[in-house]
Amino acid sequence: MSPIAVASIDARTGEPGKDVAWETSAAEIAALSAQAVEATTWLAGQGREGRARILNALADGLESHRDEIVAIADHETALGVPRLTGELARTAFQLRLMGEVALEGSYLDVSIEHAGDTPIGPRPDLRRINVPLGPVAVFGASNFPLAFSAPGGDTASALAAGCAVIVKAHPSHAGTSVLVDEIFQEVLAEFGAPKGVFALVFGWEAGTSLVADPKIAAVGFTGSLAGGRALFNTASARAVPIPFYGELGSVNPLVVTDAAAETRAPEIGAGIAGSMTMGTGQFCTKPGLFLVPDTDAGSRVVDSIVDSLQAVAPGHMLNDGIRSAYLGASSQLTQLDDVTVLSTGEGTDRAVAPLLIEVRAEALTGANSELLLEEHFGPFGVVIRYGNQDELAQALAAFPPALTGTVHTSGAGDPQLTDVVGELEKRSGRIVFNGYPTGVAVSWTMHHGGQYPAATSAATSVGANAIRRWVRPVVYQEAPVEVLPRELRDDPTPGLVRRIDGKLQIG
Amino acid sequence: MSPIAVASIDARTGEPGKDVAWETSAAEIAALSAQAVEATTWLAGQGREGRARILNALADGLESHRDEIVAIADHETALGVPRLTGELARTAFQLRLMGEVALEGSYLDVSIEHAGDTPIGPRPDLRRINVPLGPVAVFGASNFPLAFSAPGGDTASALAAGCAVIVKAHPSHAGTSVLVDEIFQEVLAEFGAPKGVFALVFGWEAGTSLVADPKIAAVGFTGSLAGGRALFNTASARAVPIPFYGELGSVNPLVVTDAAAETRAPEIGAGIAGSMTMGTGQFCTKPGLFLVPDTDAGSRVVDSIVDSLQAVAPGHMLNDGIRSAYLGASSQLTQLDDVTVLSTGEGTDRAVAPLLIEVRAEALTGANSELLLEEHFGPFGVVIRYGNQDELAQALAAFPPALTGTVHTSGAGDPQLTDVVGELEKRSGRIVFNGYPTGVAVSWTMHHGGQYPAATSAATSVGANAIRRWVRPVVYQEAPVEVLPRELRDDPTPGLVRRIDGKLQIG
Repeated sequence: MSPIAVASIDARTGEPGKDVAWETSAAEIAALSAQAVEATTWLAGQGREGRARILNALADGLESHRDEIVAIADHETALGVPRLTGELARTAFQLRLMGEVALEGSYLDVSIEHAGDTPIGPRPDLRRINVPLGPVAVFGASNFPLAFSAPGGDTASALAAGCAVIVKAHPSHAGTSVLVDEIFQEVLAEFGAPKGVFALVFGWEAGTSLVADPKIAAVGFTGSLAGGRALFNTASARAVPIPFYGELGSVNPLVVTDAAAETRAPEIGAGIAGSMTMGTGQFCTKPGLFLVPDTDAGSRVVDSIVDSLQAVAPGHMLNDGIRSAYLGASSQLTQLDDVTVLSTGEGTDRAVAPLLIEVRAEALTGANSELLLEEHFGPFGVVIRYGNQDELAQALAAFPPALTGTVHTSGAGDPQLTDVVGELEKRSGRIVFNGYPTGVAVSWTMHHGGQYPAATSAATSVGANAIRRWVRPVVYQEAPVEVLPRELRDDPTPGLVRRIDGKLQIG
Repeated sequence: MSPIAVASIDARTGEPGKDVAWETSAAEIAALSAQAVEATTWLAGQGREGRARILNALADGLESHRDEIVAIADHETALGVPRLTGELARTAFQLRLMGEVALEGSYLDVSIEHAGDTPIGPRPDLRRINVPLGPVAVFGASNFPLAFSAPGGDTASALAAGCAVIVKAHPSHAGTSVLVDEIFQEVLAEFGAPKGVFALVFGWEAGTSLVADPKIAAVGFTGSLAGGRALFNTASARAVPIPFYGELGSVNPLVVTDAAAETRAPEIGAGIAGSMTMGTGQFCTKPGLFLVPDTDAGSRVVDSIVDSLQAVAPGHMLNDGIRSAYLGASSQLTQLDDVTVLSTGEGTDRAVAPLLIEVRAEALTGANSELLLEEHFGPFGVVIRYGNQDELAQALAAFPPALTGTVHTSGAGDPQLTDVVGELEKRSGRIVFNGYPTGVAVSWTMHHGGQYPAATSAATSVGANAIRRWVRPVVYQEAPVEVLPRELRDDPTPGLVRRIDGKLQIG
């Protein structure tokens, strides 16, 4: 059987261009995962300083090929040069931040307890540190060809932790992934890295084989609920189950309180329209459901959304599958009995226009609730009008957990605020106040995740804590100092936070 | 259908005594999990100080009923009054330590970043804190009727995190669990707690229903590989999968280097015999496989184990199932072709004597390797003689991951030490030097877990970090100060470690 070719596809025309790779065979997967085991040993051996240098060099590599990468990514995703230039900068920033996180070292969770007496008897000398889990499989997302794909946050955090990475490239931007791989291999060669610190595979079957491979220790995934759940099931059903860190997207509710509508209707409406259509609505943090009071002020918010949407040009979608799904869902939703269509622009042959519909709050618990509460990629939104706080609370309780929940409020005196925040906290990874959930800051504090179906674990895929997914603790009991990693020795460790005899200490 | 009664069983005779409970029905499980949701809200509302007070009071409650608890636990487990008195003290200590861990608050992983500029644009104000996951199901273990059962570490850590607990009581010590429940309910009533902060269920089917219940947010389990894996599969196959923190036991390899055998043969042999027969060999950290050099000094270690075992009286096992499994495995193992029986004492009608067998290192990769590398509860050990470092490395590579790995060494100059530690680190949660793995210190540093099949996650079930299993992060973005939990406000928080603008700070 000859290998199946993978082409670079023009997102604006849907036409496949030249072949850039081929689907990876089972034998190739086995060889790559064996290399990744050796490469993990090498990477762990570089130490945190060495890995930070590698991550910085990978970031430099991306930036020195900026125009070339942005051009092919734009060709394959139609996301546009400005957005992709920003995404490249973000991706380089993520790589460097993960180097800083490795250097800072709090992710090692070092704890040292000297031998001593306790109320229940003597305690031996105990010293704990986190060590790399092993080779990590990463599944890139269609909608971020860089920041959540081959060179993205999962790759950066796994390398920072000392784990080799095998990326299952998204077929929707194969050429971008191949170019990134070439750049990364060149950088890694300069460090004398063995084969397998970073590798790329293609094909749906290859992805499943990768998750099932006994040498893979964990999986990072960003993508659809259906695809993510299938791979989660594979990871959990292995003879040796492994952690599957899936970010599966979400509908992100946005609440406008009465008081907020009274004071800021035009501004909120414009903001909603912008956030919902950013990147042609193809963000996992896209706000999809807008809970707006059934008042005159609420109607002014809705009018402002509709007005703002008029100015939004039709946009190209990432690929034909996503475009068909969007058009199919749009047509289903606009035909529902209890739905009012507020805004529907003229698309072109291949570019889609924004669509806004409205329902009453009770629709979320009615016969069409499943369709309304599903995530729909694309420039689509649902306005949900609520009559009072009870209706709002019931509507919020109908939501599945989400990556984010947003509230627009007049502030501390707003009588609805406490209840709304309470409901959002029960089912959100991030609560946004008077803003919009699109745009996930990359920082020490960010949590990008949530309860299922937003994610398959309590971990984050963005921000400093992403590194914690790829390590496991080991305790040394009464170890001779010579065998201890340097972080576990009594010598001072400038800048490193450690718990010593129960108390956190810095340096 | 009338409910199935659960009796208190005399471990020494195997005779069931009076009924102390009945198997919990599906309807009762549903009612209990609904109560647990409300109770979690109440518990979270008590704050960390409130929960620490409750945990201290629960510890006091156990201690003020010490004699009564120890008597029934001894009746049901045959573990003996001294051991159970110690276990009760340990259990009370765990509850209090978890109160301290809640108060200390680093498990909240608080991070505050004020709005600011970054190389990739402005960053909003972000504040992160961990919140309780929701009701937790706990499965008690047969071999620790207190410390890893109803009032044990999983319960203590879940309550500390703010999660209500439903314990699936082990049928082997039903009366002990019922007594603990009565004491806990009395203490909780004094705090005005609603029903459901702590509850007990009985029966195998009830356990499965509990894990499948949509209101249960996570599971803590200590027990067998077969039982744990079945429940892990249930937890992973739910419509909404939940984390399953299973500690499934392990064979715990113990290596004696050439140099250690030369210098400390009698002492090491006596130590091995003691550790392997402690609690009649019914510890998940029982060392089961002893890698001893094929030298004269190695033979002196083996002789010392055999001599020491002569002095060990036959012991009663926890229940008839465990006793039958032990006798069955013993009889299979002693009849293998490549096995030499080194020591087999005379048991009584119901008490079992220690058994020690010997194989050569190559047996671990031979036809009987599976049987040899399985965990066998009971006072049973396998001496594995190795000829050189290569044979030792191959034998260690054949081991499944374990909770612990132990090395006896002459210290820094020992030429085998680095390689042995390297191999143990690949597949152990804790590496013990010149000691024995039985006896798991309860402290800030302890890690009690390991890679599968030792555990189903990288988490620990003992020590301060056990609390981290029961929380999930929430980020507040640009929140008005009034809605922030006090830990997320700019005000100083005496003693609490927080990350502020990227830097960890204490207080």
